[in-house]
Amino acid sequence: MTNILDGVRVLDFSRVFAGPAATQVLGDMGADIIKIEPPTGDEARYYGVSKDKLAEMGGVSPSFVALNRNKRSVALDLRNAAGKEIAQKLVEKADIVVHNFRPGVMERLGFGYETLSALNPRLIYSEFSAYGTTGPMAGMGANDLALQAHSGLISITGEPGRPPVRCGTAIVDLHGSLAIVAGILGALLYREKTGEGQRVESSLMLSSAHLMSYFYTEYWVDGTVREPMGTANHLSVPNQAFPAKDGEVVIIASTDEMWQRFAGAMGPEQLDIPEFSQVFSRRTNRVALIEAVSAITRQMSCAEIVEKLSAVKVVVAKVNSVGEAADSAQLQAVGGKIMLQVQDRQIPSVVSPFQYSAVDINQGTPPPGLGEHTNDILQELGLDAEQIDDLQNSGAFGGLRAAAE
Amino acid sequence: MTNILDGVRVLDFSRVFAGPAATQVLGDMGADIIKIEPPTGDEARYYGVSKDKLAEMGGVSPSFVALNRNKRSVALDLRNAAGKEIAQKLVEKADIVVHNFRPGVMERLGFGYETLSALNPRLIYSEFSAYGTTGPMAGMGANDLALQAHSGLISITGEPGRPPVRCGTAIVDLHGSLAIVAGILGALLYREKTGEGQRVESSLMLSSAHLMSYFYTEYWVDGTVREPMGTANHLSVPNQAFPAKDGEVVIIASTDEMWQRFAGAMGPEQLDIPEFSQVFSRRTNRVALIEAVSAITRQMSCAEIVEKLSAVKVVVAKVNSVGEAADSAQLQAVGGKIMLQVQDRQIPSVVSPFQYSAVDINQGTPPPGLGEHTNDILQELGLDAEQIDDLQNSGAFGGLRAAAE
Repeated sequence: MTNILDGVRVLDFSRVFAGPAATQVLGDMGADIIKIEPPTGDEARYYGVSKDKLAEMGGVSPSFVALNRNKRSVALDLRNAAGKEIAQKLVEKADIVVHNFRPGVMERLGFGYETLSALNPRLIYSEFSAYGTTGPMAGMGANDLALQAHSGLISITGEPGRPPVRCGTAIVDLHGSLAIVAGILGALLYREKTGEGQRVESSLMLSSAHLMSYFYTEYWVDGTVREPMGTANHLSVPNQAFPAKDGEVVIIASTDEMWQRFAGAMGPEQLDIPEFSQVFSRRTNRVALIEAVSAITRQMSCAEIVEKLSAVKVVVAKVNSVGEAADSAQLQAVGGKIMLQVQDRQIPSVVSPFQYSAVDINQGTPPPGLGEHTNDILQELGLDAEQIDDLQNSGAFGGLRAAAE
Repeated sequence: MTNILDGVRVLDFSRVFAGPAATQVLGDMGADIIKIEPPTGDEARYYGVSKDKLAEMGGVSPSFVALNRNKRSVALDLRNAAGKEIAQKLVEKADIVVHNFRPGVMERLGFGYETLSALNPRLIYSEFSAYGTTGPMAGMGANDLALQAHSGLISITGEPGRPPVRCGTAIVDLHGSLAIVAGILGALLYREKTGEGQRVESSLMLSSAHLMSYFYTEYWVDGTVREPMGTANHLSVPNQAFPAKDGEVVIIASTDEMWQRFAGAMGPEQLDIPEFSQVFSRRTNRVALIEAVSAITRQMSCAEIVEKLSAVKVVVAKVNSVGEAADSAQLQAVGGKIMLQVQDRQIPSVVSPFQYSAVDINQGTPPPGLGEHTNDILQELGLDAEQIDDLQNSGAFGGLRAAAE
């Protein structure tokens, strides 16, 4: 059973989140991912952890572990002539280049699309920027939070009447990572047909706009500007969290049939009344409905509510903590966790979000040490030990290779 | 210039969000999307709008418009023998089937993977479920909110010390849509190599776990369970929204270099102090730092802050409303909007989140009316008017075709 991208080589110049998350998915699909790191390493190696924890983890942060399995690492100083020359040789043998520098940076380094496609016309060049490569904001830096703000996502997240909040995870980055993956896979299909490489662009801008698309359409249709609604939304009622004795559960009974079953199971006297019986009337009477439902759920445990509503096929789910979610038996059952051997410990990792019947899940190799595969990869390029020493003396690795040995 | 999926036919049995969003992307890439709707139509046609607005929109909701361009619609009653027979004929000529029914439903209808792949071994069968097709929760229904709850995403979204909230948009569905797209494109590549179709699974479960992956890894490493932090996060400081005279801006100065530039531009006396100078010390002194920064930003307008910080290359973005975001000049500049002719009005729509240099953006055809292309598609199958009438009399269309004519 061969994997889908066996034999496909990706040169990954990207850092931190969206790019690395994308190449991890490609690696899971069998591609050979060569992570080109600056001599100081991908910043995500040190991200969001205390010095103590970093030491305990052997120098890699949990987010780095989460997004960098199935890769090899080469440390190269791209501002050094010898370092640049190696990178160019790697480009000649690559199928795909991925980067997420600001527009213009790769061009200044000598790795712009025009230059690289002249070296290798079959090359697929995946470019991920903040706001795109044209337009008034093209030059601005940004990250996930900036695009949560710019896209309006923050403005619809939070409690009504209180300051809006971010979506707790790096949703624009991670959604962008799948946009990169889909864009690249499409370009590979195009290359199968035509033999030609091309440039594929995505950005935090396009990723966030895609996430907000139905809100924009609604605004464009009639000027509606949505605001935060807590755990509720504007689409239907009930469709939100309700309090239980020991936590919260979300309950969704959007259609009239679901509502009927819900009301029957939870309290026909209080709930099975004409004011709540129809999609439109439930929206009109939402405040009264939410009060009536809350009065009932408050008397029950989360488990009782989930059991009762599951039995009548009403959508219900406990509001889990991160730990409860990570330990969910269901995640394990669907093959959602794989184990990585990170130095001397086994650390679980979440699989890519699609699974094939004809191809096994790629059992992950752990995140690479910085520059860990420099020698291997240079040897694959046909360089011998002496030539590699010369490169080191020329500063191609920024002094890093010795440390990795 | 041919589009990447020209000649690829998708039978789309999916409804509401993730599936339709996925097939819209495939349609944008040139695939022929045949939306198989029940005679009552995809529920999303009527979703989240008042009766008045629905009438004004010509019977389609904004969310339906946002996710259903570049498709044709056939209304079929799959529980009717004649309706089922047509669907089977369509399967024989399809490359891809997409559905998001609960596990078992397609099997009971006679459209399970085993049955369809026997009819058409090259078929790619994309299955999107709630919690996956195995495990203790496989049979449970769910939607975006349920998986925001189950995955722990809600538990990390909101203000500290207050009830958590949902992420304002249907992030699990939309992220899932790109998982479906990537999964299918991978399967098409595999078919190019091997000639074989296969089943590709994704789910709200896998989509949400992917979004939460780095939080799970952190928990698995040392038991850390994150909680809501408003607009801030645990990765770095400052990395959150700050108040301005006329709104809010997010400011991200994660690295020490960025912080240096930020402090220099905004107020060296108050900010360029040893307590704030390093990544780790900014995390330790976050409360004092946020107060000091807020005291400065409160005196300035959003535009002033954005201008001043952009000039020193610190990441900054205004917290836009949905309307400001939709009307953003940058979205327009990067080709993020295309115009759809929906009945007698032009309605903008957001593009798919990746763009090719060798292939144009597919100028969208508007969302189809329910069953609008039934006749066309049956004629393509070789049926003549009399045969189509017979099918109608047999109830294949659930009485719908006449209405669409």
